[in-house]
Amino acid sequence: MTTPWNLRYAQRMRGIGSSIIRELLKLTEKPGLISFAGGLPAPDVFPIKQFEEAAARILKDNGPQALQYSATEGYLPLRTLIAEKMNRYGIHATPNNILITTGAQQALDIIGKVMIDPGDKILTESPTYLGALQAWRTYQAEFVTVPVDADGICVDKRLEEALRAGPKFMYILPNFQNPAGVTLSMERRQKLVQIADHYGIPIVEDDPYGDLRFEGEHLPPLLVLDAQLQANRRGNVNGNNFTLGDVMYLGTFSKTLAPGLRLGWIAAPEDVLKRCVMAKQGADLHTSTFNQMLAYEVAKDGFIDEHKQVIRRVYKERRDVMLTAMEEYFPANTHWTHPQGGLFLWVTFPEEVDTAVLLKKAIDNDVAFVPGFAFFPEGNVGHNTGRFNFSNATPEQIELGIQRLGKVLHEELAHLEPEVEYA
Amino acid sequence: MTTPWNLRYAQRMRGIGSSIIRELLKLTEKPGLISFAGGLPAPDVFPIKQFEEAAARILKDNGPQALQYSATEGYLPLRTLIAEKMNRYGIHATPNNILITTGAQQALDIIGKVMIDPGDKILTESPTYLGALQAWRTYQAEFVTVPVDADGICVDKRLEEALRAGPKFMYILPNFQNPAGVTLSMERRQKLVQIADHYGIPIVEDDPYGDLRFEGEHLPPLLVLDAQLQANRRGNVNGNNFTLGDVMYLGTFSKTLAPGLRLGWIAAPEDVLKRCVMAKQGADLHTSTFNQMLAYEVAKDGFIDEHKQVIRRVYKERRDVMLTAMEEYFPANTHWTHPQGGLFLWVTFPEEVDTAVLLKKAIDNDVAFVPGFAFFPEGNVGHNTGRFNFSNATPEQIELGIQRLGKVLHEELAHLEPEVEYA
Repeated sequence: MTTPWNLRYAQRMRGIGSSIIRELLKLTEKPGLISFAGGLPAPDVFPIKQFEEAAARILKDNGPQALQYSATEGYLPLRTLIAEKMNRYGIHATPNNILITTGAQQALDIIGKVMIDPGDKILTESPTYLGALQAWRTYQAEFVTVPVDADGICVDKRLEEALRAGPKFMYILPNFQNPAGVTLSMERRQKLVQIADHYGIPIVEDDPYGDLRFEGEHLPPLLVLDAQLQANRRGNVNGNNFTLGDVMYLGTFSKTLAPGLRLGWIAAPEDVLKRCVMAKQGADLHTSTFNQMLAYEVAKDGFIDEHKQVIRRVYKERRDVMLTAMEEYFPANTHWTHPQGGLFLWVTFPEEVDTAVLLKKAIDNDVAFVPGFAFFPEGNVGHNTGRFNFSNATPEQIELGIQRLGKVLHEELAHLEPEVEYA
Repeated sequence: MTTPWNLRYAQRMRGIGSSIIRELLKLTEKPGLISFAGGLPAPDVFPIKQFEEAAARILKDNGPQALQYSATEGYLPLRTLIAEKMNRYGIHATPNNILITTGAQQALDIIGKVMIDPGDKILTESPTYLGALQAWRTYQAEFVTVPVDADGICVDKRLEEALRAGPKFMYILPNFQNPAGVTLSMERRQKLVQIADHYGIPIVEDDPYGDLRFEGEHLPPLLVLDAQLQANRRGNVNGNNFTLGDVMYLGTFSKTLAPGLRLGWIAAPEDVLKRCVMAKQGADLHTSTFNQMLAYEVAKDGFIDEHKQVIRRVYKERRDVMLTAMEEYFPANTHWTHPQGGLFLWVTFPEEVDTAVLLKKAIDNDVAFVPGFAFFPEGNVGHNTGRFNFSNATPEQIELGIQRLGKVLHEELAHLEPEVEYA
């Protein structure tokens, strides 16, 4: 049907088709299908009882406040809690450095609105989080990319070359990156903030999974390393009063509490945070008052520190089951990353596999994953890669799903080989 | 503090200062101050008990679903409920015509993103809702305006002249308009959809208060009148299968249930709705699953139809108290609108009063309202006008607050008069 709307879309929407991923994922809604395609946390670990108690208490004691409009910046006790958590690292953050957002996805949208002019280049990892590309494409961003390997983004000549293209900022997921599951090494973190400082290019650090490390040692956020760098330069080598500078840090309660509440945050210097507040005011006035109070009530007495132990245990088990099953069922010349935390791992299949084609056959066999090509901003690469989520399915489903996919893969490769013979 | 961010803001943020209103409203946080400045519903009528029961039931029966990620389009039972409500008017809407948004403010932001190119003209009422201006200024919209009088936007030569400026769409609040409190008459509604159709300019109909009519008869939304017009043209004169066409309709649960949940919706033809879904996906993935389920649980058995009777009774009483108090305490040559519903009325003070100056004195005397100038997109008008909210304060506070302001006004006018004598 033609309506006056169809003829009037803004130019920025031209590049925004219905994503292929989105269309593919619709096919995964088939009953009995085991999906590694989504990015869903394990619902088994949601702290439902804590939310039940908190909801009852809030509505009983502070119902009118919880259901009323509230400040764009967010619920002050929650902002204070977040600032205090950052202060554990020695960062000098106050609630004035924290804006509560409707999920970290909104943080990406707000940053796009505040920072990106049409045609601006954004430096991203390759592959990178699809939601950031989607948010920033509507602001007509272009992307310059630097590959990731097992130690995260390659902090070498390729990074410097990309920086000389003059990006507005860098977008980095340092921990258990979505989609590749890799973690930026300590050495590269140090080097990255030095190079960023040298070129004067700020960093958006997106850290949804940082708390979900189940192997290896916690590494400091880029935010902290940058603050140390700035403090050292000013001669404040003791460094217990770092201020926020070149790094905006994005956090979320989606992975430590529950994504259905849509609660994330931006930590940033006050000046840029004020701009973000203005942009958010026009975007949705404020994030749900009730949900902010819920998260605060559940989190306030250190619950997340306890609860993340449970999540880590569950996710580690599932990752291990997936790694073992891949070892057993996947054909030779298939490689995958070994995530130390988070929700995803990344598979590179033999060169002759096209994962978009593979996915269709996989769905016919009741298993699904996400083809990797969509995560590369530059396009036309990664045809033989795929992202696998290990947090949402049970260990039994993971074993069975990887077995199913292994069978499809072996058939696919057997089918491909004769063609080579006849050639 | 200078950071690399300050030097890098997008051009679209240049026009976006911290709003004067926002700065003024900070002053109203003084204890003991009676504020008519905000746009807050009466917290006394929030259905807290219903939310308590619904929250407990949802978390007990469907906790994992309520706390998990969900579809960008929104919770299907809630979208179905909204579509069914529209179908009562004979509109042929399905859940595919409904997108749940994070408050109706997000609907405005999404429409801006999908429709507005930099420099596009948007036709608005004058005065109009500040949040729409704020949302659309970040998309670098310009505004062409048509005045409102007691019967809503003036559907006459001035409208046609503004339409010939080629606006992308018209933005109309037909019921108890924010800020003026006026309602578009039936005759003008008919004429408006005809003229819109004639010029081919679509309408964004924002109807947050439509359910809160406490006087006079319900008038059909522009959406319905437009659908009738389209159906008549196609010869479907019985009109019980209207489709959506030239009007996007925005609704909200903020005024009928609670604003703290941030739940609104867009009703639109499928094609444009799909674009809105894509824009929303980048903006916040989806609206809080838990809150959508809460609203559905509370609303599903016709609760809103009951509950709005309570709200209407409370708001009517408060409006009446405000009208009576203004009659008693305000000086001669002060005029105000007589809203038949909603939350606001609009005051025009004598020409020599500057409400920005008046507000400062009012705050010193523990009463506040919003100066009207900010609601005029064209600027430099309305210096002697103001918006008064009557839903949030109790009847006793309203009486006392208007009395306080009356005293300030009389003093102000007495102070202004001698200057004229000495001139």
